[in-house]
Amino acid sequence: MPLVVMKFGGSSVADPEKIQNVVRRVKEKREAGNGIVVVVSAMGDTTDEMIALAQKLNPDPSEREMDQLISSGERISAALLAMALQNAGLKATSLTGEQMGIITDDSHTKARILQIRPDKIKTELAESAVVVAAGFQGTNLKKDVTTLGRGGSDTTAVALAAALDADFCEIYTDVDGVYTSDPRVVPAARKLGRISYDEMLEMASLGARVMQSRAVEFAKKFSVVLHVRSSFKESQGTIISEETDDMAMEKVVIRGVTLTEDEAKLTISGVPDRPGIAATIFKAIAERNVNVDMIIQNVSEEGFTDVSFTVPRAELNKARQTLDALLPQIKAKGVKADESIAKASIVGVGMKSHPGIAATMFDALSREEINIMMISTSEIKISCVVEKQVGEKAARALHSAFGLDQEKD
Amino acid sequence: MPLVVMKFGGSSVADPEKIQNVVRRVKEKREAGNGIVVVVSAMGDTTDEMIALAQKLNPDPSEREMDQLISSGERISAALLAMALQNAGLKATSLTGEQMGIITDDSHTKARILQIRPDKIKTELAESAVVVAAGFQGTNLKKDVTTLGRGGSDTTAVALAAALDADFCEIYTDVDGVYTSDPRVVPAARKLGRISYDEMLEMASLGARVMQSRAVEFAKKFSVVLHVRSSFKESQGTIISEETDDMAMEKVVIRGVTLTEDEAKLTISGVPDRPGIAATIFKAIAERNVNVDMIIQNVSEEGFTDVSFTVPRAELNKARQTLDALLPQIKAKGVKADESIAKASIVGVGMKSHPGIAATMFDALSREEINIMMISTSEIKISCVVEKQVGEKAARALHSAFGLDQEKD
Repeated sequence: MPLVVMKFGGSSVADPEKIQNVVRRVKEKREAGNGIVVVVSAMGDTTDEMIALAQKLNPDPSEREMDQLISSGERISAALLAMALQNAGLKATSLTGEQMGIITDDSHTKARILQIRPDKIKTELAESAVVVAAGFQGTNLKKDVTTLGRGGSDTTAVALAAALDADFCEIYTDVDGVYTSDPRVVPAARKLGRISYDEMLEMASLGARVMQSRAVEFAKKFSVVLHVRSSFKESQGTIISEETDDMAMEKVVIRGVTLTEDEAKLTISGVPDRPGIAATIFKAIAERNVNVDMIIQNVSEEGFTDVSFTVPRAELNKARQTLDALLPQIKAKGVKADESIAKASIVGVGMKSHPGIAATMFDALSREEINIMMISTSEIKISCVVEKQVGEKAARALHSAFGLDQEKD
Repeated sequence: MPLVVMKFGGSSVADPEKIQNVVRRVKEKREAGNGIVVVVSAMGDTTDEMIALAQKLNPDPSEREMDQLISSGERISAALLAMALQNAGLKATSLTGEQMGIITDDSHTKARILQIRPDKIKTELAESAVVVAAGFQGTNLKKDVTTLGRGGSDTTAVALAAALDADFCEIYTDVDGVYTSDPRVVPAARKLGRISYDEMLEMASLGARVMQSRAVEFAKKFSVVLHVRSSFKESQGTIISEETDDMAMEKVVIRGVTLTEDEAKLTISGVPDRPGIAATIFKAIAERNVNVDMIIQNVSEEGFTDVSFTVPRAELNKARQTLDALLPQIKAKGVKADESIAKASIVGVGMKSHPGIAATMFDALSREEINIMMISTSEIKISCVVEKQVGEKAARALHSAFGLDQEKD
């Protein structure tokens, strides 16, 4: 019998009516002759509500206790879904992270799965039960409950699919797949039929909030083919898999365009151009746990240089304070912050074998008279920082220039 | 270092303010130099709310899933209390039933504790942490979560006190101890300084809703001395322990008076008086899982007899239907139900060695012109069924007749 892992997020189990919708989908799949493991997140905003309650009692609670607390959310939704499945005539058993033998490391609130001992899951499946798995959680070797971080239920689904050698791993969400771009920004965006793990990782980290990166990394590592689809519509979604000849044959060079607006740019001007300065700057920044994205160092003029880099806007103040304190030591002239930036990126494995992609990108932006402030590239991605007010225009221009626009009816 | 088990019920942890009150009490006890295990119930009405949600999805959910669901309530309150204790500067760790090694049988929703393997609790206590125990729950040998039934957190507290050989087991509630009678019925009721396990069991089963009987039975079995006291007042409460010479020396014959109004009386009239008839009747009743309390069979007249018995009012219809169906078979004349009854009882270990207690009881009732409909006795209890409308008067008369009334200031 084929085995399918189906994962439903918090909005898909937010209330009894939504849970009934999940029941309907699971029942269809079960009656089509599949073994089923359903992974669920906590209902709606349960997790946030628990965190708010915790904050009232302790503004800085221990992460171990936080995990004990918030793991309850998935236990509750899993038990409720199991009951609802039973009511629909299916045999169903809910299992917690511990019961599923999901062993993690000790990193509370962002634990990594070390091992899965799925004996109890296999027993239940052998007895024809639908297994309803509480997502997002495991236990460490001391039997303390751990959680896998935001979006951790995706990771649970992928890890179970790998451990059980499942035939399919379906991620049900409130969107119906992965799009070439955010349809709110680029109305011509199309749903993708397929995307490779690497492309999805670039898309996810650049702001396509369909799946958490860790789950996609996990899927890549264990070659779990993912199917991202809608909880509420029947249509096919997007397959996320290893890059295949298929994809190359489709001759799709660029898979998608992303736009992020949550970064800010810092520039240190008049930095004496001598070895070790960059190391001093970025070591100080790293010690404050600020994530730096792009770094640009201008050509040196008469022994002085400007260093610019981008950071998440939420960490801008922290980064700025660090630099202000550092100025006397590095003998730089000043620090300037610019919050009015956006980053438009193109992503596609095809660019590895297609020269001239960058030129096409820059040309498309210049035709719209958009000024490029910073550029960074990876093997399958090119990003340009532009003024925030032209970010959306840039995304639409790129989407069109690389032939991604939906065909008009 | 002395070890104290402190148990707080759902109303004592119902909201952040109440939890802070618990923190204060635990902190005092900890700073007085005690090792502490705090057992908590679910917050306020959490359990009932979860059950209501479950009912929406399945009117008859499996008990295994119900246990998975409702055990979350105590995990949540335990984690929150641990965080609040940490915020008050104490080291604290919450533990679930599983983590505490509470092994039960397979009877979901009313499991019995088979064994406790308290290694993890002992480790935490050795590291000077306050252990916050999620009450009401354990796991069976298949690692399925089980719950101990209503009031199960009391049982958790007593079982942990026994397993850890604790010096004290304190049950914090919203009343300040065990009273000679329900003060709402008998305004002259006094708080008892001490009561024996057996007396408490009779009081509990007769309607003094301070502690669940199972927890008291457990305490008796393992000789755990209980101290029932108020969550909100500092005063001493009531000690529940083995019957001691102290108690005898106090020369208290009757410890308390109880009144229950939730039973009904059934009378089968004109039953042919031949062997096996009573067995037939009560076997049929037992098969419907109806709990029978008192049974009276009148003196036989000309080969016919009347059989009366009491059942919980909630089970009256079920019992009546059973009897109606049985009438042709046993050839009785008819069945009559009387819901207007109350049962007034006196409880005290002292009656074992004091003759004439029953006579004093009947005399006290007759002086108030109260008619006795049924009588039953046990070694430490005498109960009289009376008309419901005179139940409270009966309780007050007995309380006064046995010298239990509070001294006037």
